[in-house]
Formats: sequence, structure tokens, C-alpha cells
Amino acid sequence: MTTSAPAATAALTGLYAEVQQFYARQAHRLDAVRAEEFAATFAQDGEFEHSPDSPPARGREAIAEEVRGFNERRFADDPVQRRHWFNMLDVRPQDDGSIQTEFYALVVITRPGQATPVIAPSCVVRDVLVREDGHLRTLRRKVTQDHLSF
Amino acid sequence: MTTSAPAATAALTGLYAEVQQFYARQAHRLDAVRAEEFAATFAQDGEFEHSPDSPPARGREAIAEEVRGFNERRFADDPVQRRHWFNMLDVRPQDDGSIQTEFYALVVITRPGQATPVIAPSCVVRDVLVREDGHLRTLRRKVTQDHLSF
Amino acid sequence: MTTSAPAATAALTGLYAEVQQFYARQAHRLDAVRAEEFAATFAQDGEFEHSPDSPPARGREAIAEEVRGFNERRFADDPVQRRHWFNMLDVRPQDDGSIQTEFYALVVITRPGQATPVIAPSCVVRDVLVREDGHLRTLRRKVTQDHLSF
Repeated sequence: MTTSAPAATAALTGLYAEVQQFYARQAHRLDAVRAEEFAATFAQDGEFEHSPDSPPARGREAIAEEVRGFNERRFADDPVQRRHWFNMLDVRPQDDGSIQTEFYALVVITRPGQATPVIAPSCVVRDVLVREDGHLRTLRRKVTQDHLSF
Repeated sequence: MTTSAPAATAALTGLYAEVQQFYARQAHRLDAVRAEEFAATFAQDGEFEHSPDSPPARGREAIAEEVRGFNERRFADDPVQRRHWFNMLDVRPQDDGSIQTEFYALVVITRPGQATPVIAPSCVVRDVLVREDGHLRTLRRKVTQDHLSF
Repeated sequence: MTTSAPAATAALTGLYAEVQQFYARQAHRLDAVRAEEFAATFAQDGEFEHSPDSPPARGREAIAEEVRGFNERRFADDPVQRRHWFNMLDVRPQDDGSIQTEFYALVVITRPGQATPVIAPSCVVRDVLVREDGHLRTLRRKVTQDHLSF
């Protein structure tokens, strides 16, 4: 670190909250399985790689399809409420105007009538964010699951 | 979303951290069962609906009473340390000056000598916040437990 | 609370995000067991008290040694990926320029091939932060584990 870091930090403070708010709304859409609305938080040519079982989805239509298909394959006969929790968010603005982020994620999965959720898996998520018409969008997301990373 | 969203986002960034800090202190009071101090984070005519087993508590006195009573009924013979965790916070300022928030919540419950806590239930919380003498206060809180929402 | 609190709150908003970002990077270093890099987030004369089983470590060299030793003693024959999660962060700037923080912590521990992590223990962390060359540093950290605090 150099002595220029505090200036960079100051520039970051507005962005940090903006990214937190962006992720909150993105997760709310994902957990409500509003697949098209979730896909709309990605850039037009966005890429979403969330599981070693699925190839990366490219473009909003493919991302919406992946979210819908994943939920149908896994949970058609096992209704659940999923909640994505993100934490320990590192936000790194890049010289080209994009923003790299890195954060932890857990999925909280509740089944009907069972107060205690399953909380799994633990993941690290790495995003590249860009702006489209001023709005933050995810250009690339890669999710890495801890239990598959040894 | 419209092209006016970035301006709204910019106005939001100070508020976002203020709400996070407000919730941190509110939760610390709740988890220490400082019932009157917790109730003081609500507006004078605030309303607190936290469980399908309890009718909404209205006004600070009733809110403090509800918190004290809930802890006595549940935990008199079962000492626990509860910790409320909030996440994926969406903050939406309204035209009338109030602020709507929506976020996820988990309750982390530790018993003496047991390192692994029970983490349950998973909830969604919807608040209306207002200002009294400039300070954020909760005017209305409704907690919805996921396992009861299918 | 007095009517001067809103001004204090306004001054806080930039700092709040800076502290969140600081903690994210600090935790990423700790969880990657980059012991020297983690220790470098402490002040030169920083103090780290994270467990009743270890005396407080004083100074960066001792902190790095404690982190390395703790991981070797506990996990040499039991490879894990640990993730420290912080939440409900209260940030309190002090008149002397230092910053007191108080927040909840959970440790998410994943073992190879096991999707469901162990999440324990629940802790409260109290830090004193200072600036060195403008950068936030932890001057003192005391971690209190809930299950040992009854």
C-alpha cells in the first residue's frame, strides 16, 4: 500500500454502498426466482458461472434460462425458499472504469414448516461490474464453492 | 429502471451507511435484552410485529413489554445469547420522507458451553423508517418467517 | 442521544464504508492464512486477543506467529477453509481520533467435499482502530466467544 490509498478510499465510499444496494436487489430477485429481472442486473453480454455442474451462461436470455432451469431441476419436488447472503465485500475500482469485487456467500435454504434452515454451501464470488446508462451491472460472475476447492 | 436512478443512487449512499449503523445499534440493544433502549429506536407510535404468535406491539411501552415478555416466556429456563444478523439490505427513500427497507434476517442462538449455535429462523424484515429530531426511528416493522410462508 | 447526533452520523458515513472494506480485506488475508499480510493490518504495536486459549499477541511479528501457529495446531491434520463473517457493525469515532468498533462474528468452516459447513462459534469483537499514514489499522482486538460468556 502507498500513501495514495486514502484518496482511493475516499473515492470508494459512495461506490461501496451503491454496490451493497445493487447486490441486495439482485439477490432479492434471484431468491424470488424472478429469472428475467435477475438477468437484467447483468450486462447485455454478461456471463454467469455459478456451479461446476453448469457451463457459464452468456447473455441475459441464457442467464434467465439457467436460473429457471436450475430451480426447476433441483426444487420441482422439494419446495424451498432460498436466500443468498453475501459478506466481507471487497470493492476494487479498475483503471478502465470497471469494478472488481470479491466476497463470501452462503445460501440459506428453508423448507416448509422447518424453522432451522440448511446453510450451504460456503462460496467465494468474484464479479466484474460495469455501468450501462449509469447503472451497475454484472459483466462477469464466477462462484467458487469452498468444499470443491481443496 | 429509468435514467434518473443514478442520481437517486448518489443521494442514497450516505443514508445507506446510516441505516446500517442504526440497525447495528438496534440489534445490540435487542440481543442484550435492553428492552426500553430497544423500544426507544422505534418512533413514538411505532409498531413491531415480529412473530405470528404475538399480535403487533404498538408504542414504545408495548414494544419494550413484548421484548421482555418474549424473552421471559421462551428463555427463562433456557439461558441463551441471541444475536440478530441482518443482510442484503435494500433501502428505498420515499417521496414523503419516510424510508422503506427490506432485508434478510437470521437469529444466531448460543447456549452455555456449546460452541455451535442454532441459526434459525430465516426471515424477511420489512421496515418503514422515519426521522424524529433528525434521528432514524422504526415506525413499522413486520418480520416474516420463511418456514411459515409457503 | 442528543440533537447533535445527526451531524455525527453524517461525518460517519464515509468512514463506515471504509471500515467495512478494511475488514473485508483483513478477513480475506486471515482466511487465506497469509499471516504476515494479516498482521500488517494491525498497528505496529497492535494487540490481538482472539481466544481464551491463547494469551494476547502483541506486535505484528507475534500476531503473524499466533495466526500461523493456531492454524498449524488446529488444522494440520484436518484441512479446512475458514471464512470469517462480520455483521451488525457499530462504528464509534472517538475524540482522540481513534475509532471503536463492535460487531458480531461467525466462523464458517468447510471441509473437503462436504457442502454443509460448520458455523461456529458466535462471537462479539471489539476493536480500536487508528490511522497509520492515513490507513486504518487495528490497534487492539478482543474477541469474546458467546458460549464461554455465560
